[in-house]
Amino acid sequence: MQRTLIIDALAATEAQASITICGWIRTRRDAKEFSFVELNDGSCLGNMQCIVDAGTTAHAQLDQAATGAAISVTGELVASPGKGQLWEIRAQSVTVFGLADPETFPLQKKRHSDEFLRTIAHLRSRTNKYGAAFRIRSEAGQAVHQFFQSRRFSWVHTPVLTGADCEGAGEMFRVTSLEPGDKDVAADFFGRQCNLTVSGQLEAEALAMGLGRVYTFGPTFRAENSNTPRHAAEFWMIEPEMAFADLQDLMELGESLTRHVIEHALAHCESDLKLFDSFVDKGLIERLKGMVAAPFARVSYTEAVEILQKCGKEFAFPVSFGTDLQTEHERYLAEEHFKKPVAVYDYPKEIKAFYMRQNDDGKTVAAMDMLVPRIGELIGGSQREERLDRLTARIQELGQNPEDYWWYMDLRRFGTAPHAGFGLGFERLLMMLTGITNIRDVIAFPRTPGNLEF
Amino acid sequence: MQRTLIIDALAATEAQASITICGWIRTRRDAKEFSFVELNDGSCLGNMQCIVDAGTTAHAQLDQAATGAAISVTGELVASPGKGQLWEIRAQSVTVFGLADPETFPLQKKRHSDEFLRTIAHLRSRTNKYGAAFRIRSEAGQAVHQFFQSRRFSWVHTPVLTGADCEGAGEMFRVTSLEPGDKDVAADFFGRQCNLTVSGQLEAEALAMGLGRVYTFGPTFRAENSNTPRHAAEFWMIEPEMAFADLQDLMELGESLTRHVIEHALAHCESDLKLFDSFVDKGLIERLKGMVAAPFARVSYTEAVEILQKCGKEFAFPVSFGTDLQTEHERYLAEEHFKKPVAVYDYPKEIKAFYMRQNDDGKTVAAMDMLVPRIGELIGGSQREERLDRLTARIQELGQNPEDYWWYMDLRRFGTAPHAGFGLGFERLLMMLTGITNIRDVIAFPRTPGNLEF
Repeated sequence: MQRTLIIDALAATEAQASITICGWIRTRRDAKEFSFVELNDGSCLGNMQCIVDAGTTAHAQLDQAATGAAISVTGELVASPGKGQLWEIRAQSVTVFGLADPETFPLQKKRHSDEFLRTIAHLRSRTNKYGAAFRIRSEAGQAVHQFFQSRRFSWVHTPVLTGADCEGAGEMFRVTSLEPGDKDVAADFFGRQCNLTVSGQLEAEALAMGLGRVYTFGPTFRAENSNTPRHAAEFWMIEPEMAFADLQDLMELGESLTRHVIEHALAHCESDLKLFDSFVDKGLIERLKGMVAAPFARVSYTEAVEILQKCGKEFAFPVSFGTDLQTEHERYLAEEHFKKPVAVYDYPKEIKAFYMRQNDDGKTVAAMDMLVPRIGELIGGSQREERLDRLTARIQELGQNPEDYWWYMDLRRFGTAPHAGFGLGFERLLMMLTGITNIRDVIAFPRTPGNLEF
Repeated sequence: MQRTLIIDALAATEAQASITICGWIRTRRDAKEFSFVELNDGSCLGNMQCIVDAGTTAHAQLDQAATGAAISVTGELVASPGKGQLWEIRAQSVTVFGLADPETFPLQKKRHSDEFLRTIAHLRSRTNKYGAAFRIRSEAGQAVHQFFQSRRFSWVHTPVLTGADCEGAGEMFRVTSLEPGDKDVAADFFGRQCNLTVSGQLEAEALAMGLGRVYTFGPTFRAENSNTPRHAAEFWMIEPEMAFADLQDLMELGESLTRHVIEHALAHCESDLKLFDSFVDKGLIERLKGMVAAPFARVSYTEAVEILQKCGKEFAFPVSFGTDLQTEHERYLAEEHFKKPVAVYDYPKEIKAFYMRQNDDGKTVAAMDMLVPRIGELIGGSQREERLDRLTARIQELGQNPEDYWWYMDLRRFGTAPHAGFGLGFERLLMMLTGITNIRDVIAFPRTPGNLEF
């Protein structure tokens, strides 16, 4: 089917005698002499205005087609005398593919609540807001790939199905080919318990110790029964891992990646971002521009705790060395103190994972979290403990068995080297880019407790 | 840590007084006057040869480091007088990060079987073959994204966790947060049965009906208990879906995508492909070049059956109209008859899925499979049935309840339009690109019945 995408037609440099566009009618307005039809095909936020003269074949073909109908329009692309668009199409012929009964089609021209639109997630990408959100999602994904490719990282696919349950089995989904109620694990598909991954880090480390620089970009799962605007059972994570790199390199990587994605969105998603700036989060674009205009801040955990203790603000959770930072603390640091993204580094080892590299002070590990205004933690990572003896001791200290990690220890037995990596929640990044405050609205078909529709 | 990647150092245009590289020792050879060390950092297949003069500090620092050790070398980059490389480094200093005990390190300089290397999947990316395979995997993934982006497709993330079990529940993994043995589905995380997706198609269709052109690129699952070189329980699929497109558009898309990925690999993975051409699949590069040199073939299923019936070849499975093509038939068509990739279209409706568009002959559907020499089916897709009445009738004919597909039917109720899409198994594509014949060897950590290690 020959046709021109509306994004291309809107960017035309000269009139054209005949082009065909396809799309869904956003609005139709009937006047005496002609009907105006605004057509959208999802290629961009903008609609193409089509003028269908009354009494023509085209008008007869258009018939009752109204909001929501799928049609194609062939006609002359001409400069628009009206305001709001450079080009419009004077229809020569119209084909109606499918109508949308105004009595039952839920997306009539009016404002719908986010909550309602979640119940029709199969249709909401036809609205301006969700079309824009999912185009930004796609562009941000491309920007991530471009960034890593430009730095010679290999995209690796670590397994979703995993036998590891080392990070707290309570949060993991179990996967089985057995019937419900059957508990004969030995007869299960893998002959042992299988879970959905909560992180590809350990496998990414293995690959980084061969390929040098790798990143994952794939779905990740949490079985946490928490109904908050920030948690989903299924979300996408980006996990770079670099051999021959330390914590400084990691902070540089996280800052550069974040900056690159914002710059890419500002350059490639202008009209979609404007929608969010106008209707969802006033000041969004200025804030994004501000974020890339200056270097991010860096502060040690110890200094951060001092800042929080001295700031005079009342927090729900008091802060002292050894406590984990809460979202309220993270947001205070990024929004009020530094007024920009800030990497906090060298956390107490007790509140961080076993694989983080132990600093010489005996108290802290070479971890870093990158905190962003309005979001809180966007990135969490660390230099990894590459010393076999230290890693073994730490695992034992935590009451675990190093043999359960035999292949992970092998990476330290054979040609071990300094390396570092982080995890970045892709949906958090999208919330930062769009100002959307509920994770359910940056995921096409979100999964949360009790919600598995579509 | 300041360093130069070996891929960049090998591409130097002039000598440099001092550079630092890091990597793992592939071989070390000690002569009287100096030691030769071949260093690889995973950025490319090639090694950097380092000359460490005997009696120097650098030589003392190198100490016992041998195959498998991780080191960094700082020195002068000079034109190499030896054969096989343009540049080499004359070491000024060496840092050893980690040794690899020659008694226990399994990757000594010798040929290892693929079967053995699968048992040390955490180390095999340090070999030439698997390093090359995973670099090609990354490049092919980038090529896929670039292709779709250049055609204005949005990358969408359809859910891995799904309540749908419409395509044969027997093949699906079940996901649960219940303890093994507990069958109280109502108390489960989603309050209903949850499976791992076997395809993102239905959700991608919903998104295509808003965004116009979309594709998925993510993990997909099959609980089939089949131990073959072509099946894995977890693999990655690419599923484009286009609104306002028909079967012709779909065949063009599949051919262009395949062609683009091959051209990208030929242009960007030259030395890695040469390894496979030399050691895994002689003639690989010529075959890939041949595939992009001419248009692919197209043949209707009916004609394909006639060709198979008349070709005089004995098949294990006889062919007649209405039978599904087996791998032997698919390979005969692509390898012996057409001698190139071929799209077979208009299959009997009985052997294809309910959502494929019914042709006017009452017998066939607008399906297409793209068959490739040595691989068989690479792509399977169809124009989708966009007519509500036809789709409803077909679902009922198959003894199912259209209400189970309420949201999928909505796409036909509201602004339905012709649309088409396919699925491409990413690992099949990689087997085509590398000549690797076992799917376990194009996946970093493959999942097959009984295999969940790493």
